[in-house]
Amino acid sequence: MRILGLDPGTGRTGYGVIDAVDGQLTAVTYGIITTPANTPMPQRLQTLYQELTALINDYQPDTAGVEELFFGRNITTAITVGQARGVILLALANANLSVGEYSPPKIKDAVTGYGKADKAQMQLMVRNLLDLEETPRPDDAADGLAVAIAHYQYYRFETLYAE
Amino acid sequence: MRILGLDPGTGRTGYGVIDAVDGQLTAVTYGIITTPANTPMPQRLQTLYQELTALINDYQPDTAGVEELFFGRNITTAITVGQARGVILLALANANLSVGEYSPPKIKDAVTGYGKADKAQMQLMVRNLLDLEETPRPDDAADGLAVAIAHYQYYRFETLYAE
Repeated sequence: MRILGLDPGTGRTGYGVIDAVDGQLTAVTYGIITTPANTPMPQRLQTLYQELTALINDYQPDTAGVEELFFGRNITTAITVGQARGVILLALANANLSVGEYSPPKIKDAVTGYGKADKAQMQLMVRNLLDLEETPRPDDAADGLAVAIAHYQYYRFETLYAE
Repeated sequence: MRILGLDPGTGRTGYGVIDAVDGQLTAVTYGIITTPANTPMPQRLQTLYQELTALINDYQPDTAGVEELFFGRNITTAITVGQARGVILLALANANLSVGEYSPPKIKDAVTGYGKADKAQMQLMVRNLLDLEETPRPDDAADGLAVAIAHYQYYRFETLYAE
């Protein structure tokens, strides 16, 4: 199974694609989608949509996980990230992908077993679980991989329960 | 010139299309795009995108105005409306429309001359400016028309300044 994980933002959206074969996880690709700051928002969202759709076409994931916004952030940030998130969810729906949405504590819990894990703990676990030689950079790309891992964990449980 | 006005929401997005000919405004159409509540968010956003795109194709506006979120609302609402707004801005960009974004006070000021006008004052002015026999229903559709009127006002000024 191939899983896409996304950490949404207008300026930069982190993504990670992993393969799960017999419970063994490997990183297929990861990185960030950036949009130019000095550009009107409709065009920035268009860039985000197009690049994400190209990524899906290139890597053909079976399902996708998306990080839910952290509710403690300020309201202006929430609106802007919400806009990016809307475009991301649309791209996933248009690609006919099933979508799981997870709060940061749920992602941390799935990756480290501890819902309040810090950034260093998360990065170490992402690196270990995917058997990577170095910590993925930039941070948003590592976050995208973490979301993919979390989605795999929860998705697997849901499938088990459903069977 | 034909102007599309939009009041974004995930559950319901109000829209209004007006024509401006020699400074005389007329309503072409107005209404709401609704999405089913008991449906996953990606599919709801997909419906919103498709219906808005169909509306644009049917009525061929020259430019569009979009209401900015009211920042006083709670953060959960802001995220949800932000998602709808992102999809709306994407649809407008994909239709190659120029886009103006206006806060509620700017819309009220453009329509009534008073940034703190109440709903009844707004509805009366929308009705008068468009020479309608009745107040447009539902309220979100009247809001869509108000955004279109505001966009026409600001757009006209900008064009004058630019010339």
